[in-house]
Amino acid sequence: MKVLLSGFEPFGEFKVNPTLEMVKEVQELGVEGVEIEIIGLPVVYGKCVDQLLAKMEEVNPDVVLSCGLAFGRAAITPERIGINIQDTAGEGDKGDNQGDKPVDRSIITEGPDGLFTTLPIRLMVERLVQEGIPAQISNTAGTYICNNTLYGILHHMHKKQLQIKAGFVHFPATPDMVVNRPNVPSMSMSDQVRGLALMIEAIRDSQTN
Amino acid sequence: MKVLLSGFEPFGEFKVNPTLEMVKEVQELGVEGVEIEIIGLPVVYGKCVDQLLAKMEEVNPDVVLSCGLAFGRAAITPERIGINIQDTAGEGDKGDNQGDKPVDRSIITEGPDGLFTTLPIRLMVERLVQEGIPAQISNTAGTYICNNTLYGILHHMHKKQLQIKAGFVHFPATPDMVVNRPNVPSMSMSDQVRGLALMIEAIRDSQTN
Amino acid sequence: MKVLLSGFEPFGEFKVNPTLEMVKEVQELGVEGVEIEIIGLPVVYGKCVDQLLAKMEEVNPDVVLSCGLAFGRAAITPERIGINIQDTAGEGDKGDNQGDKPVDRSIITEGPDGLFTTLPIRLMVERLVQEGIPAQISNTAGTYICNNTLYGILHHMHKKQLQIKAGFVHFPATPDMVVNRPNVPSMSMSDQVRGLALMIEAIRDSQTN
Amino acid sequence: MKVLLSGFEPFGEFKVNPTLEMVKEVQELGVEGVEIEIIGLPVVYGKCVDQLLAKMEEVNPDVVLSCGLAFGRAAITPERIGINIQDTAGEGDKGDNQGDKPVDRSIITEGPDGLFTTLPIRLMVERLVQEGIPAQISNTAGTYICNNTLYGILHHMHKKQLQIKAGFVHFPATPDMVVNRPNVPSMSMSDQVRGLALMIEAIRDSQTN
Repeated sequence: MKVLLSGFEPFGEFKVNPTLEMVKEVQELGVEGVEIEIIGLPVVYGKCVDQLLAKMEEVNPDVVLSCGLAFGRAAITPERIGINIQDTAGEGDKGDNQGDKPVDRSIITEGPDGLFTTLPIRLMVERLVQEGIPAQISNTAGTYICNNTLYGILHHMHKKQLQIKAGFVHFPATPDMVVNRPNVPSMSMSDQVRGLALMIEAIRDSQTN
Repeated sequence: MKVLLSGFEPFGEFKVNPTLEMVKEVQELGVEGVEIEIIGLPVVYGKCVDQLLAKMEEVNPDVVLSCGLAFGRAAITPERIGINIQDTAGEGDKGDNQGDKPVDRSIITEGPDGLFTTLPIRLMVERLVQEGIPAQISNTAGTYICNNTLYGILHHMHKKQLQIKAGFVHFPATPDMVVNRPNVPSMSMSDQVRGLALMIEAIRDSQTN
Repeated sequence: MKVLLSGFEPFGEFKVNPTLEMVKEVQELGVEGVEIEIIGLPVVYGKCVDQLLAKMEEVNPDVVLSCGLAFGRAAITPERIGINIQDTAGEGDKGDNQGDKPVDRSIITEGPDGLFTTLPIRLMVERLVQEGIPAQISNTAGTYICNNTLYGILHHMHKKQLQIKAGFVHFPATPDMVVNRPNVPSMSMSDQVRGLALMIEAIRDSQTN
Repeated sequence: MKVLLSGFEPFGEFKVNPTLEMVKEVQELGVEGVEIEIIGLPVVYGKCVDQLLAKMEEVNPDVVLSCGLAFGRAAITPERIGINIQDTAGEGDKGDNQGDKPVDRSIITEGPDGLFTTLPIRLMVERLVQEGIPAQISNTAGTYICNNTLYGILHHMHKKQLQIKAGFVHFPATPDMVVNRPNVPSMSMSDQVRGLALMIEAIRDSQTN
């Protein structure tokens, strides 16, 4: 089984993005029976998907698992659905790394409104919980770059009728990111790395069964 | 410098109390230049203090640092003040481990209303933040057993005019405790143990300077 | 313009459901230029939609606006999307009022994964904010009865190619519902009623422009 | 019975402070059997107390009830204790309206560490809850101007051995203050005004019994 992991480049006030560190660490540590490729994606609407699809073309994976930061969440949260919208009008009003601030803009004109992940998210969450790592299925990936990435790859697979397992997982902030905002939950990098490896194992096991 | 650390026995739905594990681990690992004694306290109004004072009598520490669980907090929080009240009427309405459910009852009749910790809590928080561990001073230890322990020891020192550094630190839940409540923040046991050791170092350094 | 408003019957520990009271009050107060019909729906998977569709058949509305309670939310939140899933496996694990506890079950076999509301939710939120009522677009209606109702009606319209404006709005708890859980946000019934009327006005104005 | 109510002038990003509006409204509406005096206090360490004490000197009240805003709280929260500290080092790091940013500074040198309110806060909370208004006792008024006001007046009474009932109540934001931060809880001004009047009634009834 070949897995393509993606993380993101830094954005906002943060100088590193833990998701990129995380996919590098998991690649280095390895998962038995799994070949791991990685890519860092730009925090830019549209481009995030373009670069992920180009990498898929290149490495031809069985599984694509994209990783993003959900500052404020306390658990690892595999996403159920990507939706056909780009919107930065919510709380925070942050544009992407090129200053784009869309409001209620479609990702793909005429694309379906929402597309479910093809990852076995229930099994992934169960594996994490068994191993003592807080996790739950999330029903919204938001309307920012993370959702754009998720919807973009699912739409590509839908259009091309590809049988790849693809999806997106949101991770909490790491403790160092919240030292000045001590009410914001965090999760240690080692638990996040372990969690990512466990989810890859759960996907691998679901394939072979 | 001799430090007495206390943790608590389990209570409520939890079968282990991470604070007791934590003080055991820190004692085992050790802190340079510090002799560490430990005790596990009952989650019972009054008795929690009695047993802590008996242990103090026995080991004669320079520093007493009590550790308690604050389910729901995201950071390590040294407490600023203990207050002369026992009250379980708040959200949750949990009695202690013997079923006692006081409402607005004094801990010490005629005792002062509040007593500040004598630990260097500002330095302790600064040390944690420097090392990337979320921390902040808390201005309330609640009105349950943790506050009872804090107020009880501070009142004893106040009455006896002891020059001991004494105080209380609240710690977050560990990840395994929140796997079924994935919105509740947690902190890995290894970060909590490291945090407790760092706070002891900060106290040690403040003494020798 | 004819508007069909739905609220829900009580569920869980609560003896009244404010959404049913709310739609009754708005019907009584009236909105200029708008004929208002109302219905109370059962908190039961599937049936919630069946009864709403039957009422639609009967009254032939231009707009269907369903109202549900989102205990824990602080603002009025029009929903962007309904998704094709029934799932009670999340935090709380509550079944419906007939004890049904589905896990990851489709609402409509072969139905699209997600369907966007056809209500002008951006305009509705803007109107509320202008009038000083906290509001924001929500990107998830959950996977319980509320989402079932939203997806069910959108799927019906999609299949029948109806041009009706239809959607779902989540409302906060009322203050009396949270007196024993004082950390849970609430909104006064009078603000909720005013908010619902303002949203109907916003829809009316968007139709005539 | 004569009651002196205080509210605060605006601070931070907000152009009005609801607590000042609230005490004006309650004075206007009146409470049976109670003479009400009001004052608006500056959001400045030290001065807040000086002006409150000067007003007390002038009007000679039986009860002093100070009202402050606790942005982020969902319920009305009578405070149990004022503590002898001025500290702006917490999250936010806001100075007062004159730019003063103390860190761990005593309000009164040699003053006691903490002083309990002399208001019947349990009865006040019970009355509010009975009337459907979310309320709970708070065990920390923070370390900003609100706590300064509370500690300052309690210390004055303590020193002068006055038998006045005095204390502080924190109120939630009003809905208009949170329209752009829709996750922050709020309470309608009419419920806040009603809540303040009910607390005055509870104090009045406790005096006469």
